[in-house]
Amino acid sequence: MMRTRPLKVALLGCGVVGSEVARIMTTHADDLTARIGAPVELAGVAVRRPDRVREGIDPSLVTTDATALVKRGDIDVVVEVIGGIEPARTLITTAFEHGASVVSANKALLAQDGAALHAAAEEHGRDLYYEAAVAGAIPLIRPLRESLAGDKINRVMGIVNGTTNFILDKMDSTGAGYQEALDEATALGYAEADPTADVEGFDAAAKAAILAGIAFHTRVRFDDVYREGMTEVTAADFASAKEMGCTIKLLAICERAEDGASVTARVHPAMIPLSHPLASVRGAYNAVFVESDAAGQLMFYGPGAGGSPTASAVLGDLVAVCRNRLSGATGPGESAYAALPVSPMGDVVTRYHISLDVADKPGVLAQVATVFAEHGVSIDTVRQQGKDGEASLVVVTHRASDAALTGTVEALRKLDTVRGVASIMRVEGE
Amino acid sequence: MMRTRPLKVALLGCGVVGSEVARIMTTHADDLTARIGAPVELAGVAVRRPDRVREGIDPSLVTTDATALVKRGDIDVVVEVIGGIEPARTLITTAFEHGASVVSANKALLAQDGAALHAAAEEHGRDLYYEAAVAGAIPLIRPLRESLAGDKINRVMGIVNGTTNFILDKMDSTGAGYQEALDEATALGYAEADPTADVEGFDAAAKAAILAGIAFHTRVRFDDVYREGMTEVTAADFASAKEMGCTIKLLAICERAEDGASVTARVHPAMIPLSHPLASVRGAYNAVFVESDAAGQLMFYGPGAGGSPTASAVLGDLVAVCRNRLSGATGPGESAYAALPVSPMGDVVTRYHISLDVADKPGVLAQVATVFAEHGVSIDTVRQQGKDGEASLVVVTHRASDAALTGTVEALRKLDTVRGVASIMRVEGE
Repeated sequence: MMRTRPLKVALLGCGVVGSEVARIMTTHADDLTARIGAPVELAGVAVRRPDRVREGIDPSLVTTDATALVKRGDIDVVVEVIGGIEPARTLITTAFEHGASVVSANKALLAQDGAALHAAAEEHGRDLYYEAAVAGAIPLIRPLRESLAGDKINRVMGIVNGTTNFILDKMDSTGAGYQEALDEATALGYAEADPTADVEGFDAAAKAAILAGIAFHTRVRFDDVYREGMTEVTAADFASAKEMGCTIKLLAICERAEDGASVTARVHPAMIPLSHPLASVRGAYNAVFVESDAAGQLMFYGPGAGGSPTASAVLGDLVAVCRNRLSGATGPGESAYAALPVSPMGDVVTRYHISLDVADKPGVLAQVATVFAEHGVSIDTVRQQGKDGEASLVVVTHRASDAALTGTVEALRKLDTVRGVASIMRVEGE
Repeated sequence: MMRTRPLKVALLGCGVVGSEVARIMTTHADDLTARIGAPVELAGVAVRRPDRVREGIDPSLVTTDATALVKRGDIDVVVEVIGGIEPARTLITTAFEHGASVVSANKALLAQDGAALHAAAEEHGRDLYYEAAVAGAIPLIRPLRESLAGDKINRVMGIVNGTTNFILDKMDSTGAGYQEALDEATALGYAEADPTADVEGFDAAAKAAILAGIAFHTRVRFDDVYREGMTEVTAADFASAKEMGCTIKLLAICERAEDGASVTARVHPAMIPLSHPLASVRGAYNAVFVESDAAGQLMFYGPGAGGSPTASAVLGDLVAVCRNRLSGATGPGESAYAALPVSPMGDVVTRYHISLDVADKPGVLAQVATVFAEHGVSIDTVRQQGKDGEASLVVVTHRASDAALTGTVEALRKLDTVRGVASIMRVEGE
């Protein structure tokens, strides 16, 4: 079985993830050889700053010319851990053109141009694997596209961003406000200096697009994903959540519509009951809850980021892609045959928790309730708290479309007796 | 891409799982065709009782002659959901000899004869897939043997039997005794009329053997797995567990020794802290916790049994195996290159919770502590409770080998002041 020619791997990027990939390729070389059926050799490492010391990497392998590396023609697998759209996109397509398969951890690129990259891989008979692009070390892409390939997935709901989960968990457990919790996350290295991609939900939205595409065999792009960050979540929201037996998580939710004819994908903070398995996901961990026709409810849990966990996912893909090279086969490519339309956020049906600041006088509740009724939004519970001529009204609705809820809130804002809408939060996982 | 000749599937067994596999193959035929790249056709169904009505299955496909079915020569994939050792083993090897790949849900057979079956598959260039053999619908075999193929797994610890988890969860939440909880499980259909395979840990031990083999790239057979059932777990044990902030689960634990030179696999009831993710696995659900060098801690959670969930796993394998048939490739076979020795239970190192009934007089604790010290077992905490000349002593140890603990307990039993050893339970997950 064992052949002598080693499989050649080109590594694009040698940061936190790339250096860990290179390290494991060296330290676990014998295991990788046994599992693949041939040795794998690091044939080149493309970096931006060649002068930086890279422990354990032969300096003669280091180059700044990534394009020349992927064009060499003798590369079996290109591992892309640069991130971002360019030059990653051009390097990956060039790699396919020159006969290499690709393992990528690039969620932004996959969410934007997954279809084109898959097409390029297929055109050249090569593999494109990207387990590391979603939820770090957690095996998720492979279970969804292979283990559940004979099942019908109806919902994927997950905590796919560790930074925001760390912040929300901190707010929940200590009563801290958003800024205080963010500061701690930054100090501990869980949040970047510019946390926008995480806290505004861009990172989670890219992952949601990838997950929805695989789960529903339908192309879902980053721009198709509704996105709301978690910077407006307050300590008061957590207090409200607690009163409902809930906590607040930033969720990526991909759903098949009840009639099966369309799908939705969205990222936003939401209340979920403490009894839900996702509620107990602590710190920077990730977890993804999957509901399917036959399997029922599954959950996948683990570290969602970090050099070693991400490298574990990259190396799992590397083994699979190398095995495919040896057998002359390719793994599953893009599966978008269902081609379901992606519905806008207005079509999403869920429950809502709305806090209103209202005048504390008779008839306000009746007025508010009338507005809900006029928009076809059915109220589950109302809690009224008054003090000093001001009052707050907390309304929890039954399931209603996002469009109906938006219409309701617009109408509520126009009421003289409603001083303000303090918060609107979706309630999921019930 | 689409070829016209359908792939032919022979189904061996048409009970709870088999009938669900047949049903999904019919209702989801278009999806399966799209995902595989060719239609799949149910070519025959071997059953023991052909007269039983099987809804949705063409009666002309039903046969009692399973051997003739697998020998037909035009079968692409044999799905074996009969269970047990024979005739399943002979049918599977015959299937390979006649050119078919095999998808099996047969944990007992895989745990006993996995190596021989893998060898037969490899000899004939065919696939042997068995995701459904462990933890029902939960994708576990594929993530372990593919997603984590580039990582080093150090421990797999799981709740892999739903019946016993239902019983233990019931005892935990209601204070019921074992028999009462078992009766309820039986009444609700969670336990079979003869629950031996579940409550004595045979089922879990077969799964432990399969998981250990894959995780450590080493052959581990059913007989290599230490096994202790959960019929002796009492309400008093749960009370002790609660005092320690723990609950009790029947765990399958596969570990690499600290020096990396050997492995162990065992099934027994154990206390685990309430903060551990496995502690909150309720009812008949399964969950498996995996610890590896690079990925860190992962958990996979879902329904561990039942017709639909098991069928989901079978169909995922069926899609993969059919895709391999079309591309002329095979998936990963047995990986046993590490060939690590399986150490006996005496070599396992863990913590212990021991309840002793002792005479309530001065010096007993000193005597007991001396016995522990003489056997090299270090005590973490001792709690002493006395009433009416009798007393109980609860000792929690630091980590020690099972052999040392066994020696300690034997010596304790010989002390005049020790009236009895009420319970010994391992403490895991800390």
